[in-house]
Amino acid sequence: MVGFENIAPFLVLAAAVIGLAFAMYKFFWVKKQDEGTKEMSNIASKIRKGAMAYLKRQYKTVGIFFVVMIIIICVMASLGLLTWFVPFAFLSGGFFSGLSGFIGMKIATYANTRTASGARKGLNRGLKIAFSSGTVMGLTVVGLGLLDISIWFMILKFGFKLGADDIMAAMLTFGMGASSMALFARVGGGIFTKAADVGADLVGKVEAGIPEDDPRNPAVIADNVGDNVGDVAGMGADLYESYVGSIISTGALATAAGLGFSGIIVPMLIAAIGIVASIIGTFFVSTKEGADQKSLLGSLRRGTYIAAIISAIASGVLIFTFLPEHTGVLWAVISGLIAGVLIGFFTEYYTSDSYKPTQKLSSSSQTGSATIIIDGLALGMNSTAIPVIIVGLSILVSFFAAGGVGSFELGLYGVGISAVGMLATLGITLATDAYGPVADNAGGIAEMAGLEEEVRNRTDALDSLGNTTAATGKGFAIGSAALTALALIVSYTDKVESLGGNLTLSITNPPVLIGLFIGAMLPFLFSAFTMKAVGRAAQKIVVEVRRQFREIKGLMEGTAEADYATCVDICTRSSLKEMILPAALGILAPIVVGLVLGVNGVVGMLAGALISGFAIAIMMANSGGAWDNAKKYIEAGNFGGKGSENHKAAVVGDTVGDPFKDTSGPSVNILIKLLSMVSIVFAGLIVKFNVVDLITGLIK
Amino acid sequence: MVGFENIAPFLVLAAAVIGLAFAMYKFFWVKKQDEGTKEMSNIASKIRKGAMAYLKRQYKTVGIFFVVMIIIICVMASLGLLTWFVPFAFLSGGFFSGLSGFIGMKIATYANTRTASGARKGLNRGLKIAFSSGTVMGLTVVGLGLLDISIWFMILKFGFKLGADDIMAAMLTFGMGASSMALFARVGGGIFTKAADVGADLVGKVEAGIPEDDPRNPAVIADNVGDNVGDVAGMGADLYESYVGSIISTGALATAAGLGFSGIIVPMLIAAIGIVASIIGTFFVSTKEGADQKSLLGSLRRGTYIAAIISAIASGVLIFTFLPEHTGVLWAVISGLIAGVLIGFFTEYYTSDSYKPTQKLSSSSQTGSATIIIDGLALGMNSTAIPVIIVGLSILVSFFAAGGVGSFELGLYGVGISAVGMLATLGITLATDAYGPVADNAGGIAEMAGLEEEVRNRTDALDSLGNTTAATGKGFAIGSAALTALALIVSYTDKVESLGGNLTLSITNPPVLIGLFIGAMLPFLFSAFTMKAVGRAAQKIVVEVRRQFREIKGLMEGTAEADYATCVDICTRSSLKEMILPAALGILAPIVVGLVLGVNGVVGMLAGALISGFAIAIMMANSGGAWDNAKKYIEAGNFGGKGSENHKAAVVGDTVGDPFKDTSGPSVNILIKLLSMVSIVFAGLIVKFNVVDLITGLIK
Repeated sequence: MVGFENIAPFLVLAAAVIGLAFAMYKFFWVKKQDEGTKEMSNIASKIRKGAMAYLKRQYKTVGIFFVVMIIIICVMASLGLLTWFVPFAFLSGGFFSGLSGFIGMKIATYANTRTASGARKGLNRGLKIAFSSGTVMGLTVVGLGLLDISIWFMILKFGFKLGADDIMAAMLTFGMGASSMALFARVGGGIFTKAADVGADLVGKVEAGIPEDDPRNPAVIADNVGDNVGDVAGMGADLYESYVGSIISTGALATAAGLGFSGIIVPMLIAAIGIVASIIGTFFVSTKEGADQKSLLGSLRRGTYIAAIISAIASGVLIFTFLPEHTGVLWAVISGLIAGVLIGFFTEYYTSDSYKPTQKLSSSSQTGSATIIIDGLALGMNSTAIPVIIVGLSILVSFFAAGGVGSFELGLYGVGISAVGMLATLGITLATDAYGPVADNAGGIAEMAGLEEEVRNRTDALDSLGNTTAATGKGFAIGSAALTALALIVSYTDKVESLGGNLTLSITNPPVLIGLFIGAMLPFLFSAFTMKAVGRAAQKIVVEVRRQFREIKGLMEGTAEADYATCVDICTRSSLKEMILPAALGILAPIVVGLVLGVNGVVGMLAGALISGFAIAIMMANSGGAWDNAKKYIEAGNFGGKGSENHKAAVVGDTVGDPFKDTSGPSVNILIKLLSMVSIVFAGLIVKFNVVDLITGLIK
Repeated sequence: MVGFENIAPFLVLAAAVIGLAFAMYKFFWVKKQDEGTKEMSNIASKIRKGAMAYLKRQYKTVGIFFVVMIIIICVMASLGLLTWFVPFAFLSGGFFSGLSGFIGMKIATYANTRTASGARKGLNRGLKIAFSSGTVMGLTVVGLGLLDISIWFMILKFGFKLGADDIMAAMLTFGMGASSMALFARVGGGIFTKAADVGADLVGKVEAGIPEDDPRNPAVIADNVGDNVGDVAGMGADLYESYVGSIISTGALATAAGLGFSGIIVPMLIAAIGIVASIIGTFFVSTKEGADQKSLLGSLRRGTYIAAIISAIASGVLIFTFLPEHTGVLWAVISGLIAGVLIGFFTEYYTSDSYKPTQKLSSSSQTGSATIIIDGLALGMNSTAIPVIIVGLSILVSFFAAGGVGSFELGLYGVGISAVGMLATLGITLATDAYGPVADNAGGIAEMAGLEEEVRNRTDALDSLGNTTAATGKGFAIGSAALTALALIVSYTDKVESLGGNLTLSITNPPVLIGLFIGAMLPFLFSAFTMKAVGRAAQKIVVEVRRQFREIKGLMEGTAEADYATCVDICTRSSLKEMILPAALGILAPIVVGLVLGVNGVVGMLAGALISGFAIAIMMANSGGAWDNAKKYIEAGNFGGKGSENHKAAVVGDTVGDPFKDTSGPSVNILIKLLSMVSIVFAGLIVKFNVVDLITGLIK
């Protein structure tokens, strides 16, 4: 094994480079495809420009935040509360997280029109282009993640000659950059996409009576831009963060468990294996011509499963070689992989109209919008039970299998490894997920460009498949966020201990308990903020669209063009403004709670936010998904079909579900990770000063 | 102080008897009042019969459950897992809890028509009768609670000559009887009242277009019966349980803190003081003739505040006398009292249309039902923040003031005492709360009996005042449930320790963590169950009301009478059937979690359910209350007034809010206490056997 620790980081780096190279190859392959008619390419260019304009301004806004944080971090570093690696780590995390979103969005905005154009030739052609663009996104995220990790690791190990403990302590802090960037991307993008969607629907569909994606609707481009900035860029930044967070925190747990460099390098190598396995998996995603929906889904699934099996086997070899005394860790990898698949499946079960829950939900539209709302909320609440049990079992298995009975720290290392296992094949799972918004956009372009009905049918089939994979992807994002946040919480306690902080983590310790209360409340408050933000932003779009219908003559008749840019601009402005309050909550809560309640209060808050955030995120994702598909189920001709009173009731459900599933719910995932990351960075400050310790000291 | 411990229990008993005697005096005073016209007394008699018929059948159903539980408990006792006091304690808790609900409902069903009749003479006359019936309820609950506690205490102390520890260990278990009874009452009653309400509204108001409380609506009697079985009997059983639970668990914490009999008797004496203070407070509830709404509310508040001040001063004397070395405990009492008042106030702030949040909510009806739903949910989620901070501060103050720095146990005793302090004046706070449904019923009777418009206006004023007090009461019920559940969790850990259980309560211990996840999910699942139950039951009422409108000739013309009894019967049957699943969840969850994860998992589950349940209960109560009042605000002529499109949107919000605020939300309070109670009773079993300990043992 001698010399292995010098070679392994290069293997990790190599996997990152392979992943990025494959992503680049796919990128150019997609770009090479036919853009379609001039009108299509024209529309696509508008969407692309809108999306890029948004992203640039988002980065500017976030840039101000980064400057402020860097100053704070530098002050703390000069006071000796942080090492001087932190500002650089913080920046690199933010940079790569942002870059992941940027590249993902770039390719998505190239692929949308090409997918539509491909769909003119055949269903499978469309699938292949859309899935390839998803692959770019998936492999960019994991490639950049592992690149960042392996380079930092090498700099700290070979450059600064740090020991295992110090390396992980420094690297842990770099997640905060990724988390903050992810939160801004998710919240900002989420508000953008839903403000545009709700605004377009309320005036276009409901008031003016024109169909979805009709080019006469001034908000239609903004709506399509939203799919990209919210679902693509936001999702990419979110999962980048989970991916990186799980690997780093597990490495930190390894040092606590006394596993040294082997323990740190194993999660990195598992991730490296996952990249290669994901690439192999993508080759199995292809079907015969004339395949139906079910076989398309099967083809996507085949790729994912093959990647998972390869990962599991190769991880086994790895663990038996490098952790020969802790081979039980393999079960942690496997339990993570299985948990990810199962949570994905149950998300689909609760939200797809192929299963009973959503079918029943659409039947409750028959007694009006109130009952479909009640039943949809109940469905979402109901659906929290199974994922909780799956995550619970996964924690239990990983903990015991990794040797938690003999060594508590070893058991917790196992829990971290299960998060790494779940995310190992992210390259391909994210590909199937990111494929969705591309197909959605392709449908929009087909509609706007007035393509043949057959094409629209094909893009609809792709879109519907995308809804399923998006649901699975959401469950997966939530599950991995939970395990990652958990590993981060444990890393935090290790960090506090290393700083000499006084931990009394018993649930009955008042600061812990109050922290739990506050933590459990945060996802509620955060969701309230984000939901209200969507409402306010949508309101502005409503006003603007009404104005254009009123003032632009010939718009409804199709003789004049709508002023799309203004709608995009309004969405951009208001989402950037509205993302500040929720983001501030995520960043300030751990600091304020820490300053008042001390480190025990922080741990309580993190655990409280994790457990209630997990339940809320699932509930919101599944209620929202089920309402959306219940509406689609009615539109497919059930319970009266499109235009019936039942359909109107279902539209109300869908509208309520929009901010649930695409803004608040997914942002909560990031919130629970960001809270942990901020806590880790500010641990030094809180250990030195907090009110509860001060009072305790005074009384004593 | 010698001999004091022999005298004190009799003082407590005396206060209980005084409270009951005063309740009885008020009972007969109310009964003596004029019933009004023959038609009014006829309607009232129908409501009373329906309510009693429901309650009898509910007791029968619950009786079966009690028999099963008694058998299980006896088996456990004969295996040495429990003492033989438990079955009797269990029964007495259930009996008195049920009796509280029964008496409260009896007086409420007498007072409704008398309040309507009193309102014919003047507003204040109506107020006085309704408030007196509330007083009966309030003082019955506290009187019976303290009676049960003091008698048991005397039996165990003087009869069985047990020591302080053994007394509290035995008494702790009796809360489970009260909790189960309360859960059945709250869930069953909550389903009944909302099924009738929603069913009556959907067909009567929406389809047939007849006003609320119109005698032609076949579900109108069931609707009024529902106010009594849900809001009165359910609320009574709920607060009975919090009251008793807080006193007993604080006594148990006293033995852990080494305070002996003084520590046990002090909470009982604080409660005794509270009864006397509440009675004194009731005398201050009266106004000059011609008083406006604001001064009416002021008059109710005056009574409450005077009782609170008297309690605080007398508790101070008590604590300085009997706990001279722990006078800081007084701050715990005061912080509890203040927290109760503050939570009540903020509940009102978020739900009353005199304040901005609800006014803004009604303005969002202008963009349709989807936006009012989104904004209402956001409002409820938003409103969780302040109560969490209040409870957190109250815990912190009580813990430190009671001496938590020197002795952890002493600090936790302080937290228990703050719950007792919050509930000390329950006699009068419950009176102002229970007054609401009586005023509501009075309005219904005035409408059905076709009384003068002026009378209806007066009952409407009383009802509207009742909505405010009900909101305050709900906040108060949630706040006290949280503190009580907290004290119970700590008592549980003490109990487990005394049984030799192996506690590792650190948040990072996997069973604790998994328990937290499961616990946080339970209120979601429970709410889903209860919301769906309301939906199913309401559906049956819809079918029946439609049938009667169709088949009974002359009903709509007012020449034939509706078949009210069938609707009452359907509500009764379905709510009794539907209450089983949620109740089973509350009882089985701690046992199953305990058998799998052991005592640490149970503590995690209890804490998780407490913190997420607290947030959900507040959210549901406040979203529901705000929707209700937003609708009323529109009906008062704002944003288009009654019948406008905005009003229709607000009705959707109100309908969604119904199960939120009157079924699921309040039941969650009981759930979090019941989980603790069941855990305490089954602690012996779980300490002896659970899977996690078994596996750990095998691996070791």
